[in-house]
Amino acid sequence: MKKEFVTYIRTLQNTITSALEEVDGKAKFKEDVWKRPEGGGGRSRVIENGTVFEKGGVNISEVHGTLPESMQQYFGVNDANFFACGLSLVLHPKNPMVPTVHANWRYFELYDANGAIVDQWFGGGQDLTPYYLFDADAIHFHSTCKKVCDAHHPEFYTKYKKRCDSYFYNAHREEGRGVGGLFFDYCKETDAMSMQDWYNFVTDVGNSFLEAYLPIVVARKDLNYTKRNRQWQEIRRGRYVEFNLVHDKGTLFGLKTNGRIESILMSLPPVVQWKYDHHPKSGSEEEKLIEVLKNPKDWV
Amino acid sequence: MKKEFVTYIRTLQNTITSALEEVDGKAKFKEDVWKRPEGGGGRSRVIENGTVFEKGGVNISEVHGTLPESMQQYFGVNDANFFACGLSLVLHPKNPMVPTVHANWRYFELYDANGAIVDQWFGGGQDLTPYYLFDADAIHFHSTCKKVCDAHHPEFYTKYKKRCDSYFYNAHREEGRGVGGLFFDYCKETDAMSMQDWYNFVTDVGNSFLEAYLPIVVARKDLNYTKRNRQWQEIRRGRYVEFNLVHDKGTLFGLKTNGRIESILMSLPPVVQWKYDHHPKSGSEEEKLIEVLKNPKDWV
Repeated sequence: MKKEFVTYIRTLQNTITSALEEVDGKAKFKEDVWKRPEGGGGRSRVIENGTVFEKGGVNISEVHGTLPESMQQYFGVNDANFFACGLSLVLHPKNPMVPTVHANWRYFELYDANGAIVDQWFGGGQDLTPYYLFDADAIHFHSTCKKVCDAHHPEFYTKYKKRCDSYFYNAHREEGRGVGGLFFDYCKETDAMSMQDWYNFVTDVGNSFLEAYLPIVVARKDLNYTKRNRQWQEIRRGRYVEFNLVHDKGTLFGLKTNGRIESILMSLPPVVQWKYDHHPKSGSEEEKLIEVLKNPKDWV
Repeated sequence: MKKEFVTYIRTLQNTITSALEEVDGKAKFKEDVWKRPEGGGGRSRVIENGTVFEKGGVNISEVHGTLPESMQQYFGVNDANFFACGLSLVLHPKNPMVPTVHANWRYFELYDANGAIVDQWFGGGQDLTPYYLFDADAIHFHSTCKKVCDAHHPEFYTKYKKRCDSYFYNAHREEGRGVGGLFFDYCKETDAMSMQDWYNFVTDVGNSFLEAYLPIVVARKDLNYTKRNRQWQEIRRGRYVEFNLVHDKGTLFGLKTNGRIESILMSLPPVVQWKYDHHPKSGSEEEKLIEVLKNPKDWV
């Protein structure tokens, strides 16, 4: 399973970065291969100052060794060896009409003293953060998510859509980070789902990413925008930073367990603004976005 | 003590905002008076887009009522009434040659069921965050801090300077937020220091703020700077955001206990950048700063 999933994310990273470079037309991903002193490593690919993508990263990592103390606490286990691998991506487009996107697919194994697997699970998801709301984009993204979920379980879409809304929530602002998508974690063997079934589900979600996101990029990347639109995007990016640094378990976990800082923080937007007590004008497009972030919608 | 300190911070807010407006010459503080539904309120003053100050806030608050559950845990007490007041300020200058500054002076009381004081303490400090390091500025700031400390106790400066270095530390970057200053907390009655002695100390520190900071602003505000200097400032401001959102107890505490979000987050800089894996050139002025942030110096 481990070997199979590692091969999968390596190939997916290639597929995704090639497709994004093609859409961008100018910038290329810079590759950064790194080793983890305690075991394993990763292959980060970062794009900056593109025509379409102002900043983004599509990173894979495979790490293993003794479970760090902080993770023992987190998972409620004692001394153990572990293996974890995954692909994480965040894309911050330049044009405020193109939404930011985040996705992650990961697999985890815990071992006993003899190296036998005592626990294993998948996790991940994908979610969309627009700056200007085009209903059609949110509907397209969610429809793609629903289609891939429905092929595996009739309740997955509803369940993981809801989890996404509640996970990517800026509690201190009382608003969602974006219009959501899917979020799932601790996907373990059950009577209904074998680990192979979960593998099939998670990789199908991974395979749906480009179909879910690229048509939106293509439809919006050449739209005109004003300085005011751009300012709104930069202010909203501030909320993205607030979520990632204050609430996101993955980010905080990485920062507090001596993770690879630059790979973890590649999710932060390139240019960000904070204005004091900024509120969009009543009836504006900006206010329309906030409405939806405060009251998540059923898009399909 | 309560009444005396509230009067003190109100007056100090006036003194500081007037002096800053005078140095800025263009922008004026906008006042925002707010009430806390559970008791008390505050007076925020925010400056934006000035000649000297790109963004800043000088806020006072006086809050009271039942100690929120999360604070009970924090202070290790059960049901209790409390009173807290303080002045908090952060200034983000436009010119990268002028350092950002932060200061805070606060007073806390806890009461038993009959309204008698069961505990009371002062806290606070002031610290400097340069983007380009002028040794003379760090020396001036620390000398002012030392002078005010020495008038109250021969060990205060050394002790509170060290605490400042260890508190304002971006552990995940292994570097200080800035060149420090003073940080003290839980200043309670002892044989050597009465509450009145602490009051005298804390208010003397508050009174030293303008003397510590303004001469630096005046000396650097008209220096020339390049686009590259400005970019460095914006990248370093990213570290400021990282500290405030990931590590600062006050900010996280406020965000998680339904504090007044805009007043808490007024500390965030106006325009910020994150670049992937940015490192200053060897031998550059930018690298010189990093050296000092990684290895805090004794400035006086």
